Amino acid sequence: AEFHKNDIASGEDILKYGVPNRGPALRYYRNHILAYDQSKRTPVWVAEHLTKEKLHGNADRRKSKFRPDPAVPSMFSSGNGDYLGSGWSRGHMAPAGDNKYDQEAMDDTFYLTNIVPQDMENNAGFWNRFEMFCRDLTKQFTDVRVISGPLALPNLEEDGKKYVKYEVIGDSMVPVPTHLFKVILTENAETDQHSQFLGAFIVPNVPISSEHKLQKFQVPLEDLERVAGVTFFDKLDKGQVQDLCSSDRCQLIPQKHFEMHFIGRRMENAKTVEELENIWNEMKNKKSKPTKDIKNLYEERKEELMPDRMRAELK
Amino acid sequence: AEFHKNDIASGEDILKYGVPNRGPALRYYRNHILAYDQSKRTPVWVAEHLTKEKLHGNADRRKSKFRPDPAVPSMFSSGNGDYLGSGWSRGHMAPAGDNKYDQEAMDDTFYLTNIVPQDMENNAGFWNRFEMFCRDLTKQFTDVRVISGPLALPNLEEDGKKYVKYEVIGDSMVPVPTHLFKVILTENAETDQHSQFLGAFIVPNVPISSEHKLQKFQVPLEDLERVAGVTFFDKLDKGQVQDLCSSDRCQLIPQKHFEMHFIGRRMENAKTVEELENIWNEMKNKKSKPTKDIKNLYEERKEELMPDRMRAELK
Ligand SMILES: [Mg+2]
Ligand SMILES: [Mg+2]
Repeated sequence: AEFHKNDIASGEDILKYGVPNRGPALRYYRNHILAYDQSKRTPVWVAEHLTKEKLHGNADRRKSKFRPDPAVPSMFSSGNGDYLGSGWSRGHMAPAGDNKYDQEAMDDTFYLTNIVPQDMENNAGFWNRFEMFCRDLTKQFTDVRVISGPLALPNLEEDGKKYVKYEVIGDSMVPVPTHLFKVILTENAETDQHSQFLGAFIVPNVPISSEHKLQKFQVPLEDLERVAGVTFFDKLDKGQVQDLCSSDRCQLIPQKHFEMHFIGRRMENAKTVEELENIWNEMKNKKSKPTKDIKNLYEERKEELMPDRMRAELK
Repeated sequence: AEFHKNDIASGEDILKYGVPNRGPALRYYRNHILAYDQSKRTPVWVAEHLTKEKLHGNADRRKSKFRPDPAVPSMFSSGNGDYLGSGWSRGHMAPAGDNKYDQEAMDDTFYLTNIVPQDMENNAGFWNRFEMFCRDLTKQFTDVRVISGPLALPNLEEDGKKYVKYEVIGDSMVPVPTHLFKVILTENAETDQHSQFLGAFIVPNVPISSEHKLQKFQVPLEDLERVAGVTFFDKLDKGQVQDLCSSDRCQLIPQKHFEMHFIGRRMENAKTVEELENIWNEMKNKKSKPTKDIKNLYEERKEELMPDRMRAELK
């Protein structure tokens, strides 16, 4: 700025009774950090660091519960009641699945500070596959940093003017984002410093056909920064960074594998042998050929769910 | 929070390449301080401290120019071009007129960081009177603290759902606020500590009939805080504070005085005797009786504008 320190307003004078308070700049959790928007009752951005080690373990999302973060004043917090019956799902920004290594870290992602109203199909479908894509990047890179968040983007209407319009749900009036973003930065600590790759993506908060490629949603980082009002990875020498989607690197897992993943999750959740058999038969009827992993899981779960009496007979 | 420091994510790890950057928390100017929203290219709130002394002097708004604050990265700044031809005026949050004591302080209020798209009639009419009301409070109180800003509030639509909708103008897509707010805190340093008065107001960003009283727009402070996502005057003992609008204290200046104010401003701006006479006659034709101040101003300006030749003749 062009001001001299002596010319400018003194905070002690104008702000004698306190700086208007938007809450803490950062909120720290066990495996993610976020900036929270008290006026919207949703995060501005949520940052994570994915490594291979954190993606494996026994943490179980069925043990986690969505709940308000008690650190957020209730007047600025959403509640489960805002979401239930709204027609919108509770969409994780830091995904639960990035925290398999630690139940408490996974629990933290269920704080509503990490949640935005998300289209159900988007949440369970394309966005979910996008999250798996991020996790799979740890197979190629030692360090994957992901920043995710909601956006409210304008639309050109019939009168020739641009408008931002979004629904707000529940008594807390939680805004439904028009879009969601992710910025992904990958690197290999073991190899040379300059093997860094970066990609920025903006995905509309609507059902997305499984046909669409991830690249369809890639945008220049600066375009995202402009609409988000946030610059990302300021300490990174961006001149050295390569496009994440070059060399065919932005392949989502095939829809078939994605379906297998869900069959797997349902099998894990099955409570009786009958339920397990139903899932198995449903899959076979759809002519989906089970992968080796799914076949193994089926066998395992079958033995696990078998009544002790039957198990004894088999021995 | 219920976390232990050792459990939580380390910023150095997740945020190795920098904290996602929303810009400085506060921006200091000569006589106001504001929080800026980079994503909206408008302020979140603008704080001022009005005193009798600052309201008098020779600073002249005709010498000030609207312009982007060079301290804001251009990708997060609005420009004059966004406003011109948009149908919306450039509305000051910290009013120029609160800075008569210093031209540079007044100039600072013309930085676009202090500006939001405002309905023209609202800006020139009701909001202007509201600003005069704030200034007039310095006649009763030694210290008047005012915080102003834009809001985007939801509306119930025909489908039974609530939506936030606002136009965005220009290439920078500057959001047009649906409402504007002010929080006012007054005190008398000379008398007892507890003579503090507080009022919070939310005014729709539309033309407001001069019939409306200011009280119509008063809201409980907490209602404003909830929608703004900001708490105000946190260091104030609010249990001791009285309602600003009690004892008939929230009287806007009468519409007639308000009109005189504008006649005065036009007279000040008149460049020829003819122009001055036109304003004078226009007022008389409207059967507005000039106040003593206006009459004096008319005489003063007349002498000032008179050609030297004529002035010599009169002597
Ligand atoms: Mg999800
Ligand atoms: Mg104005």
